[in-house]
Amino acid sequence: MSVSREEIQGFYRQVQGELCGVLEAVDGRSSFRQDRWDRPAGGGGVSRVLAGDGVIEKAAVQFSAVWGPVPQVRAESAVAGAEEFFAAGISIIIHPRNPHVPTMHANLRYFETEDDAWFGGGADLTPYYLNEEDATHFHGVLRDTCTRHAEGDYAAWKLACDAYFFLPHRGEARGVGGIFFDHLRAPLADHFSFQQDLAKSLSHAYLPIIERRHQTPYGPREERWHLQRRGRYAEFNLIWDRGTRFGLETGGRTESILASLPPRARWDYDVAPVGGSPEDELLKMLSGPPRSWVS
Amino acid sequence: MSVSREEIQGFYRQVQGELCGVLEAVDGRSSFRQDRWDRPAGGGGVSRVLAGDGVIEKAAVQFSAVWGPVPQVRAESAVAGAEEFFAAGISIIIHPRNPHVPTMHANLRYFETEDDAWFGGGADLTPYYLNEEDATHFHGVLRDTCTRHAEGDYAAWKLACDAYFFLPHRGEARGVGGIFFDHLRAPLADHFSFQQDLAKSLSHAYLPIIERRHQTPYGPREERWHLQRRGRYAEFNLIWDRGTRFGLETGGRTESILASLPPRARWDYDVAPVGGSPEDELLKMLSGPPRSWVS
Repeated sequence: MSVSREEIQGFYRQVQGELCGVLEAVDGRSSFRQDRWDRPAGGGGVSRVLAGDGVIEKAAVQFSAVWGPVPQVRAESAVAGAEEFFAAGISIIIHPRNPHVPTMHANLRYFETEDDAWFGGGADLTPYYLNEEDATHFHGVLRDTCTRHAEGDYAAWKLACDAYFFLPHRGEARGVGGIFFDHLRAPLADHFSFQQDLAKSLSHAYLPIIERRHQTPYGPREERWHLQRRGRYAEFNLIWDRGTRFGLETGGRTESILASLPPRARWDYDVAPVGGSPEDELLKMLSGPPRSWVS
Repeated sequence: MSVSREEIQGFYRQVQGELCGVLEAVDGRSSFRQDRWDRPAGGGGVSRVLAGDGVIEKAAVQFSAVWGPVPQVRAESAVAGAEEFFAAGISIIIHPRNPHVPTMHANLRYFETEDDAWFGGGADLTPYYLNEEDATHFHGVLRDTCTRHAEGDYAAWKLACDAYFFLPHRGEARGVGGIFFDHLRAPLADHFSFQQDLAKSLSHAYLPIIERRHQTPYGPREERWHLQRRGRYAEFNLIWDRGTRFGLETGGRTESILASLPPRARWDYDVAPVGGSPEDELLKMLSGPPRSWVS
């Protein structure tokens, strides 16, 4: 193999350190705490979580590298038939405090069995108020990153992201999407370059949005809507997200898996925004067919 | 059959009306709103939800009666092999505002296919601070209700309740349990009497607990803990509750199904109460083997 497990792990750890540094600077007040954990069946991880009263209400930037016999539950999955696996990755979730700043989620991952190996990953944006320029900027950076690499297929990965981050019981998208890709097999060295480029792009895609929105004034109305929409975020992660369910069902570290949940959420009965309001505008967009944000 | 569908539906509607009246009196400020909904494949329901700034932060008392061809998803369930079903029931969830008042959940239900019919139901209590006298009172009323009926099997139904309301990914019980029963077949007239007695008992089991706790002083610490524990309540309902998942996967009315969720919740990372604190006392109890509350 052209890329070693050690290189991949080292790279993910480096991304974790860099992103945490950048996010602490953006936040301006709080620091990430760090927890190392071991997986009894093999491997472990390092969870880094920030929570406080600055720009970011809660952020989790988590590294893991786990290995061992393929869990039984995986029988129907991509590794069916394999006996041993190795998986490394980094997952990122950022819940800012201001309702005008979207939540960003991203992950980069590498998977290996005795006779197969591939990279995967993705990044997506969940706004609470619709600012088209934010969605266009985020998608534009991701598209440009894809364009720089032979394997990059922005159009297909954008569709895959829209299909994945959807709440069937609400008939709503989680947000404005992004990209979602998997099973990038040989040449692994090229895909590793793409992972590195995408990791760098995450800051370019997201930080300008935080910068231009985090001081937007808001009141109780916007905060209530923010918490109601975060309830939808929790619904997606707890009901539908395959990674979350797989992790919980196979005995993963619960606090790390659920670090993605919003710090605060509300469930009010039968919320219906006033027609034509900014809340209604967001909801109409999420309930309609996925939009094309960049050409 | 000795009990008609009409009688059963009429009874559940009556329980709904009575409970809403009692709860409005307890709350002292807000009224239940009411929504009728139709199920395209047959039947419908009446959802009644109270939300406000009185004693009760959110309560949902919901009636439904649905029928038609057995949904495909039900293939593995108790009605496997049946073609047509009829199901009626009432579900009750009460989330008081004061962290010292437990949440109560209960349901009564009737199921019928072309060659089978049975009653089921249950009631359980979820405290945020442990008051043993509350758990003992709640279980005592349920045990006494069971004792009055030949089919009543408090000991077995208490165990079934403990087994059901458990969060495997946390290694924690949802609360102090109650009773959970199903498949009470002939004689249906007797079981219908038991449903009626149990419906009456719910007020006796729960209202005295609200009365004696709703004015207990609390501050930000207790409120934060309350919301964190309500996060666990949301986790149970969204990840593990069979009724919720079945409802969402078969296209039930989402707002009715998810009316059980707490009005507000928090997810803080790796919360660990100080040893010996009241929060720690609750957590130790929920993490230990289920306790026997009444003999």
